[in-house]
Amino acid sequence: MDPQELKNLLNAFKDGALGEDEVLARLRHLPFEDVGDAMVDHHRSLRQGFPEVIFGAGKSAGQIERIMASLSARGSNVLVTRLDEAKALAVKEAFPAAVWHADARCLTLEEKPVEKRGRGTVLVISAGTSDLPVAAEALVTLRMLGNDAEHLYDVGVAGIHRLLARRETLFAASVLIVVAGMEGALPSVVGGLVDRPVIAVPTSVGYGASFGGIAALLGMLNSCAAGVTVVNIDNGFGAAVAASTINRV
Amino acid sequence: MDPQELKNLLNAFKDGALGEDEVLARLRHLPFEDVGDAMVDHHRSLRQGFPEVIFGAGKSAGQIERIMASLSARGSNVLVTRLDEAKALAVKEAFPAAVWHADARCLTLEEKPVEKRGRGTVLVISAGTSDLPVAAEALVTLRMLGNDAEHLYDVGVAGIHRLLARRETLFAASVLIVVAGMEGALPSVVGGLVDRPVIAVPTSVGYGASFGGIAALLGMLNSCAAGVTVVNIDNGFGAAVAASTINRV
Amino acid sequence: MDPQELKNLLNAFKDGALGEDEVLARLRHLPFEDVGDAMVDHHRSLRQGFPEVIFGAGKSAGQIERIMASLSARGSNVLVTRLDEAKALAVKEAFPAAVWHADARCLTLEEKPVEKRGRGTVLVISAGTSDLPVAAEALVTLRMLGNDAEHLYDVGVAGIHRLLARRETLFAASVLIVVAGMEGALPSVVGGLVDRPVIAVPTSVGYGASFGGIAALLGMLNSCAAGVTVVNIDNGFGAAVAASTINRV
Amino acid sequence: MDPQELKNLLNAFKDGALGEDEVLARLRHLPFEDVGDAMVDHHRSLRQGFPEVIFGAGKSAGQIERIMASLSARGSNVLVTRLDEAKALAVKEAFPAAVWHADARCLTLEEKPVEKRGRGTVLVISAGTSDLPVAAEALVTLRMLGNDAEHLYDVGVAGIHRLLARRETLFAASVLIVVAGMEGALPSVVGGLVDRPVIAVPTSVGYGASFGGIAALLGMLNSCAAGVTVVNIDNGFGAAVAASTINRV
Amino acid sequence: MDPQELKNLLNAFKDGALGEDEVLARLRHLPFEDVGDAMVDHHRSLRQGFPEVIFGAGKSAGQIERIMASLSARGSNVLVTRLDEAKALAVKEAFPAAVWHADARCLTLEEKPVEKRGRGTVLVISAGTSDLPVAAEALVTLRMLGNDAEHLYDVGVAGIHRLLARRETLFAASVLIVVAGMEGALPSVVGGLVDRPVIAVPTSVGYGASFGGIAALLGMLNSCAAGVTVVNIDNGFGAAVAASTINRV
Amino acid sequence: MDPQELKNLLNAFKDGALGEDEVLARLRHLPFEDVGDAMVDHHRSLRQGFPEVIFGAGKSAGQIERIMASLSARGSNVLVTRLDEAKALAVKEAFPAAVWHADARCLTLEEKPVEKRGRGTVLVISAGTSDLPVAAEALVTLRMLGNDAEHLYDVGVAGIHRLLARRETLFAASVLIVVAGMEGALPSVVGGLVDRPVIAVPTSVGYGASFGGIAALLGMLNSCAAGVTVVNIDNGFGAAVAASTINRV
Amino acid sequence: MDPQELKNLLNAFKDGALGEDEVLARLRHLPFEDVGDAMVDHHRSLRQGFPEVIFGAGKSAGQIERIMASLSARGSNVLVTRLDEAKALAVKEAFPAAVWHADARCLTLEEKPVEKRGRGTVLVISAGTSDLPVAAEALVTLRMLGNDAEHLYDVGVAGIHRLLARRETLFAASVLIVVAGMEGALPSVVGGLVDRPVIAVPTSVGYGASFGGIAALLGMLNSCAAGVTVVNIDNGFGAAVAASTINRV
Amino acid sequence: MDPQELKNLLNAFKDGALGEDEVLARLRHLPFEDVGDAMVDHHRSLRQGFPEVIFGAGKSAGQIERIMASLSARGSNVLVTRLDEAKALAVKEAFPAAVWHADARCLTLEEKPVEKRGRGTVLVISAGTSDLPVAAEALVTLRMLGNDAEHLYDVGVAGIHRLLARRETLFAASVLIVVAGMEGALPSVVGGLVDRPVIAVPTSVGYGASFGGIAALLGMLNSCAAGVTVVNIDNGFGAAVAASTINRV
Repeated sequence: MDPQELKNLLNAFKDGALGEDEVLARLRHLPFEDVGDAMVDHHRSLRQGFPEVIFGAGKSAGQIERIMASLSARGSNVLVTRLDEAKALAVKEAFPAAVWHADARCLTLEEKPVEKRGRGTVLVISAGTSDLPVAAEALVTLRMLGNDAEHLYDVGVAGIHRLLARRETLFAASVLIVVAGMEGALPSVVGGLVDRPVIAVPTSVGYGASFGGIAALLGMLNSCAAGVTVVNIDNGFGAAVAASTINRV
Repeated sequence: MDPQELKNLLNAFKDGALGEDEVLARLRHLPFEDVGDAMVDHHRSLRQGFPEVIFGAGKSAGQIERIMASLSARGSNVLVTRLDEAKALAVKEAFPAAVWHADARCLTLEEKPVEKRGRGTVLVISAGTSDLPVAAEALVTLRMLGNDAEHLYDVGVAGIHRLLARRETLFAASVLIVVAGMEGALPSVVGGLVDRPVIAVPTSVGYGASFGGIAALLGMLNSCAAGVTVVNIDNGFGAAVAASTINRV
Repeated sequence: MDPQELKNLLNAFKDGALGEDEVLARLRHLPFEDVGDAMVDHHRSLRQGFPEVIFGAGKSAGQIERIMASLSARGSNVLVTRLDEAKALAVKEAFPAAVWHADARCLTLEEKPVEKRGRGTVLVISAGTSDLPVAAEALVTLRMLGNDAEHLYDVGVAGIHRLLARRETLFAASVLIVVAGMEGALPSVVGGLVDRPVIAVPTSVGYGASFGGIAALLGMLNSCAAGVTVVNIDNGFGAAVAASTINRV
Repeated sequence: MDPQELKNLLNAFKDGALGEDEVLARLRHLPFEDVGDAMVDHHRSLRQGFPEVIFGAGKSAGQIERIMASLSARGSNVLVTRLDEAKALAVKEAFPAAVWHADARCLTLEEKPVEKRGRGTVLVISAGTSDLPVAAEALVTLRMLGNDAEHLYDVGVAGIHRLLARRETLFAASVLIVVAGMEGALPSVVGGLVDRPVIAVPTSVGYGASFGGIAALLGMLNSCAAGVTVVNIDNGFGAAVAASTINRV
Repeated sequence: MDPQELKNLLNAFKDGALGEDEVLARLRHLPFEDVGDAMVDHHRSLRQGFPEVIFGAGKSAGQIERIMASLSARGSNVLVTRLDEAKALAVKEAFPAAVWHADARCLTLEEKPVEKRGRGTVLVISAGTSDLPVAAEALVTLRMLGNDAEHLYDVGVAGIHRLLARRETLFAASVLIVVAGMEGALPSVVGGLVDRPVIAVPTSVGYGASFGGIAALLGMLNSCAAGVTVVNIDNGFGAAVAASTINRV
Repeated sequence: MDPQELKNLLNAFKDGALGEDEVLARLRHLPFEDVGDAMVDHHRSLRQGFPEVIFGAGKSAGQIERIMASLSARGSNVLVTRLDEAKALAVKEAFPAAVWHADARCLTLEEKPVEKRGRGTVLVISAGTSDLPVAAEALVTLRMLGNDAEHLYDVGVAGIHRLLARRETLFAASVLIVVAGMEGALPSVVGGLVDRPVIAVPTSVGYGASFGGIAALLGMLNSCAAGVTVVNIDNGFGAAVAASTINRV
Repeated sequence: MDPQELKNLLNAFKDGALGEDEVLARLRHLPFEDVGDAMVDHHRSLRQGFPEVIFGAGKSAGQIERIMASLSARGSNVLVTRLDEAKALAVKEAFPAAVWHADARCLTLEEKPVEKRGRGTVLVISAGTSDLPVAAEALVTLRMLGNDAEHLYDVGVAGIHRLLARRETLFAASVLIVVAGMEGALPSVVGGLVDRPVIAVPTSVGYGASFGGIAALLGMLNSCAAGVTVVNIDNGFGAAVAASTINRV
Repeated sequence: MDPQELKNLLNAFKDGALGEDEVLARLRHLPFEDVGDAMVDHHRSLRQGFPEVIFGAGKSAGQIERIMASLSARGSNVLVTRLDEAKALAVKEAFPAAVWHADARCLTLEEKPVEKRGRGTVLVISAGTSDLPVAAEALVTLRMLGNDAEHLYDVGVAGIHRLLARRETLFAASVLIVVAGMEGALPSVVGGLVDRPVIAVPTSVGYGASFGGIAALLGMLNSCAAGVTVVNIDNGFGAAVAASTINRV
């Protein structure tokens, strides 16, 4: 309920168009409706041209199709994450215009062109080939959120010269997402080179004492490069949302 | 070594002022000196008017004084973090102009006015009274890094109305740092209300199954509000550096 | 052995109908028989009209059918939990009157109407769609235990207004079960709003640093809302039994 | 803001006593003020005759005294938990009427008689002598919250007959709090004997593989007695609040 | 090499039947041959009529058959543990006299009657139906090692009267193996009732915070009944070997 | 209540010396009194000449003295474990006949000669010098429980020849307690050499990744020598009780 | 860029063949090009006759074939690790000269004879049959890296005489790799016998409290034999690379 | 007992100088004495001019002095590690020639000049100032073991240029020990630059999610630079022993 609506309500009461109880009834839930409106006001999907996002893991193809149908009817762009190929192909039959990003395990549906909203380029850096799916999820998300995004890959810390050779690419980015498994050291090195926000994404790549990404996660939380922030293991999507919010500040 | 210095060196060789071997000797380490310069170029302390930061834990008062003397001689502002009171008082005797922030366990020395560099206000939100030292460390750091910073405290999730009542303060911030111990739920609620970058700081406040902040850390990494990023337990300083970098983008 | 039986025994001895050794032999096992009786006396299944409960995981369809046949012969209502669909369908062939609750992975057999025993309504609140199976298990259990039960879903902490908008539903409940995965923050928020017993159920929903529900479990154990109690991960059944016991106090 | 106040406000506008902007300004914050009131409405301390509770750990004697002075001025009863003896004695000098419960590490100040609000007796059961402080914290809290409370101690599972000998005490309780360290098995045994709500409190008593209470916590979460709920390690206070809420249903 | 052989060797040298180098060659490896002999001397399989034991997990049916053929040729009894049904059936085709114990996942081959070697009866106690496979593995092992063994099942701590009712069975055992999952409390109760050796076997039965048997393991290690010893999770075989060694002391 | 007392009660009723209600009242608690007697019957301290054991950690010198006075009055031998020196000296002033075993952190009071009850010698083997206190606790306990006990020390696995050189001592023992910190490998080696019961005691000796004894504990639980059983970290007392029970079988 | 190139560049400037800006442009990237060259200079694969190594896990047969084709075209030897049989057979169809090492799960392609580069023999010691795949991976890697390698197997610590009987084999090795699961004690025993470098490889063999190799890993990190170093769980490849580097020093 | 001694023994028997029983008695313990000798043969302290090493933690000054007196009497060099200053000063009073290395927390006593035994220089690299004590322990140990050792410090991965600038120092080392806390990334970077053995030492430096060195340990175990081996947290001594063994190969 925006201020004008509230004024109208008050004046309708003053004018006698609405009785005391009627106004009271409408005001009674105002806090929550208003909070609700406020939230909707801040609901990124609607207010900011963000796509609707569906977390695909644990949903059936049928469930995903029903949600997509409802969103598509409203003209929303849609991003489905954590989707396996079988479900993706089933969904694509229902929505032929949807695009399946196999490397990112994401499906996108653009009902309208994505509006460019970011001021600079978000650079996604990944270490090994096994980290690529998480990096790809971040890239698809970044683009659906209206950012220019680039990818710098195969630049692990054990071959530090490959990273240093791309110094200018690093310095040109407005926000950096660094994706790494195993020891998770790459964000520390990148964070020591640039003075832009660095978001670290640990991946579950590894075996033995990597413990499904715990080693990389702890490494990133303990980064000796001050100012590196971290998201959950394999959470390329979350890193992209954070980077997108920063890129739009 | 900046471009002009390099030109001078080259021309001194051309002019015969320096012999081949002399130039070679100086260029020999150029890559690394240059990398060094490049790094220095990106060394936040010098380039960005950042203060020099000394991690006080594990250093003696004497060690801290020696480092401060060297920095002070260069005219640098200094921030000492993780300092206990006894050492702080000893250091203050040597540097009477230094300010001791007891709540933040930080000591600051401003040899020159801190230059305002942030575009907006960074809001630090904390839940319980025990989270205050970490919040205070973030606030001192933010201000030494040239940001406007505000503090909203005592707004835990078990009394959600107190947070909601401060909605406008939340919406006015350009970056938000949310400090919480115990279950670490506050960043999720804040992240659901605002569309600005939210940096979560778990604190070691709690007992039993809080495991020194692990519960809060895991809670924040698993935040259902997409886009929340996390720093190490009790790392108010790191959150402030990250926020400062974002605030200056 | 109730008091009357004991009196009869004593008088049979006094009357000479039983000899000293015979009485002694019967009294010898009295403690344990009596303890046994006392226990049976408190055996919820018999005394309270509770259904018999079969933990289905790890039992074959054949084993479950044999137990159900024995219970059904006694006229008991039966609740089978943690059942997968294949086994459920096999069991249903043997017991066509049984009802398969696919969402709750439970099978129920009502040989007699469930007696209403709870004084108020138990409200089950769940956060995300992935928490639904655990919530459903709680709901089926609550109803089989004779409670009125309602479900409030899709009210995660990152969209706090949706929860607040249902304030009256919250206040109307006599006991609340709050089911949440990821950071497990919902019980803290609910516990801060109501003054009724709140039982928190962490779920294994999540990935990476959720560690199969540990993050949610720790969050709930460290709830800043005093008085929240917790059950095992995914234990919707246990929460329902606890709520049922409270609802009948 | 209750309905009458709202009506008054509306009519003041209708009557012209308040202008549109003035009403708007007051309504603008209504949601939050109203939410605030609603919360205050449910603020247990005020509404329910509960004492104010101060978590003493990490607060100085001076801080505690200032809070107590403010509460005492309002006539509130006060309960300070997790207090060490030195601070307790300092606080007692300022508040001679306060009572120091050394075993419970709690201080209480009764400005007015505690109103009996519980319907039955809450029984606190503890296993070993080292569990006594946690049990004592629960007992002091229960009494300050208006419950009748009893204590059954030294009844560990390795001497099961001592527990069984107190069968009638167990059966007479309306709610049971079971405090145990080491393997934390007592709640399972108690939960199998009674049909009343059982709240389990793991304690940090033990050494080696007790891991500061983790063994007991896990034991209680995995209790084979359905319906046992659990609170944080050493959280006698939280168990008492939960029991008190149940006892008043 | 026993003393007589050594004397013979020495005298053969003295007599000139063996040269210095020949004696030296035989003495050269004496330590290790002797250590070896000593070990063989203590090799339980040969010296004590123990069966040969094959750990079936990770071995193919073919590998198991080859080992069994070699043992069978020597007339040894054979016990294969941790075998799945498919491999067991394949092996049984090659050794029709072998017996497949489906509940214990063990296969036994008795080439000669098992010699009774234990002095008393080893009692295996298990709590829930899911603990049965581990108990069965212990029982099969005990019998193959020459012990009388009995099984007491379905006596969990949440129905303590069922255990107490079997008091005489408990007191009659010479060694007790207690198998339990979930909270692992049964060994503490049993250990408090009897004065015989109690070996606790945690099982991986459970879900959520049972963490695959860690909860039960920790519970047993922290048993408040002094003198309970523990083996690895699900290690019914190891408990039986330990009990067998004790039963033969 | 022994059989004779029960007969007397019955005959007093038959004779009319006691009325029906009086007998009923006394029998009413019989189960539990009887269970109590049964338990007392099995109470090791009384029945078996065992000393009374006081766990000293967390008890004040005064508390310990009061318990000892009560036990001493009954003529019981007393063993106090986990006692620090300051408290031990205070207690010794009150009980000059008590003996303080500084290495074992135990205090013993022999009111009567310890009766030899073990059939063989229990051998305590320890690896490094830092494991000595735990070994000493086991030795003091073994002797107070009536066993012959010997100590073999400084025989870690990194100098395996020192252990092998004591082969005969190993073979002569009826039960072996093996105490080791760090990697906890000694019980595997010993368990491979002997065919007697081996009880492993992990110690908290070590640093870094020993995690306070977890490394040794896990090593022992995973021993490749079948039949090794394990007690809690640093639990020399528990190992001695278990060994004592075995030694008396 | 080697010194001569640098001299040429300088003189070209001095001679006027290159202008100031041209020289500056070439020097501008010098650090990174040079660092890059330096790295290539140290790229083991090229400089040292090492094979190229492909980590097969997570790569499709097609991806592996494409990489192998590119390497094969350059005449490089190739080692593919962590390959499952299905993919191996597919790859072998494309490269009939490749050899599939089923036990090691490795595929090798020798385009040219492996050059012997090690000075001594690297001995791989393994404990149980289940550790064989990890040992085999180490052996294949060692041989592809130009080392003489031998294997000593089935020498677990519970049968210590088998290890001691092979004393001369141990003493003859220049580097030792010790592979063990379960309690991981073998490296301590070996490290106490030899004075050569010992590299310990924990394996994930075991169950229950072996926690997928954590028990063995912790045991090895806490080895009481000073100088034992450790690699990741199941990392036979890494141990072989380390041993190879040592063997070539 | 070497071959010649054995021959002498045999011939003394042949010659009648020794009787059968006398020879038998001496041969009886031969295996173990011989094993013992073999071990002594490989006892590094004696055979290799290594110093005797005393682990100072947990030993009193008196105990250390007694061991040193015994070693000093044999003319051995002595290294005491993990010593605190108070004990060190006490020991130095008894052994004025001993040297106290405060930074390394080590005390050394050189009764004879340390013999240079290493072929190259061992380089110890450390990241932050807090890692210095561990690096210093490694350096003191290396020198007492006869190695040339150098120290490169303050070269953390967040300022990678400082490490690269010392490229030639890195390449000149024969073995490298890399000491790092926090994220433990330095060994990966160093391991990618050099082709010499790299031993990684995690330190307990850090806070929060560094978990006392676990983060660094896991990072190093998961190093993406193949061939890095790891020792226990803070184990500078162990790394130096390993490096010394390698440096002497």
